[in-house]
Amino acid sequence: MDFRIASRADVPAVLDLLADDEITRLRGFGTVPEQVDAAVWAAFEAIDADDRNELIVAVHDQEIVGTCQLTFIPGLSRGGGERLLIEAVRIRADQRGRGLGGELIRWTVERARERGCRIVQLTTDKRRIDAHRFYAKLGFTASHEGFKLAL
Amino acid sequence: MDFRIASRADVPAVLDLLADDEITRLRGFGTVPEQVDAAVWAAFEAIDADDRNELIVAVHDQEIVGTCQLTFIPGLSRGGGERLLIEAVRIRADQRGRGLGGELIRWTVERARERGCRIVQLTTDKRRIDAHRFYAKLGFTASHEGFKLAL
Repeated sequence: MDFRIASRADVPAVLDLLADDEITRLRGFGTVPEQVDAAVWAAFEAIDADDRNELIVAVHDQEIVGTCQLTFIPGLSRGGGERLLIEAVRIRADQRGRGLGGELIRWTVERARERGCRIVQLTTDKRRIDAHRFYAKLGFTASHEGFKLAL
Repeated sequence: MDFRIASRADVPAVLDLLADDEITRLRGFGTVPEQVDAAVWAAFEAIDADDRNELIVAVHDQEIVGTCQLTFIPGLSRGGGERLLIEAVRIRADQRGRGLGGELIRWTVERARERGCRIVQLTTDKRRIDAHRFYAKLGFTASHEGFKLAL
């Protein structure tokens, strides 16, 4: 599996991955519009132009089988080291259970380490019990409560 | 109480606030050096130059009594709307229990709303039981597990 920063041409495949998820569907943002919305393109352009945001795709046999978004956050804590936030992690349904997710997360952690980040963090829905085991196995600690407020 | 974006002159007061916390002390980053480290200045400059990062200070009687950091994150989910991440929330010890924290968080949520964010999120250590009640009262839902990996 190869990992790279997503290009414009990858956006429809990434949207398919984001939508193909039970909890996303329950949230009501799970439908991929026939034509990608202008706001979604604008978001892609914003990520693409920002040194501290990276939309990542995992590619296997020339197909996009996974994605996540990385945000590198400067801060005054922890000696001024950056924090990596991982969001929107998805592995294509037919590729799950083969270790690709672990490969993807280990790659992002290595990327954070190379950049000198002091911490990597993410939140995962309390209903995703399998995800909790998955991140614990990768060395993460469920030390925090993740609070959300939808606007 | 007034809220504004921190200037360079506010950095020592913000570092004092960040350090004055039991859990931060346990983590071992709780000592404020006599002279602010070059890496911390660089982090401040990075935040200051970045449209998607804001170091906020709460000012009362010309003294800094609170702080938090805001990161506005573009993303393809939720119709292309931004996500606000709140980090490093602190109220000065002698000012706690007077509602200033609530004022600060409500102000940040309003700022997110004006900017068109679709979600506000934060994590808080599982040991901070008072903070959990505090965020629940402000309308946040503890729907997620917060995973961290220190590097």
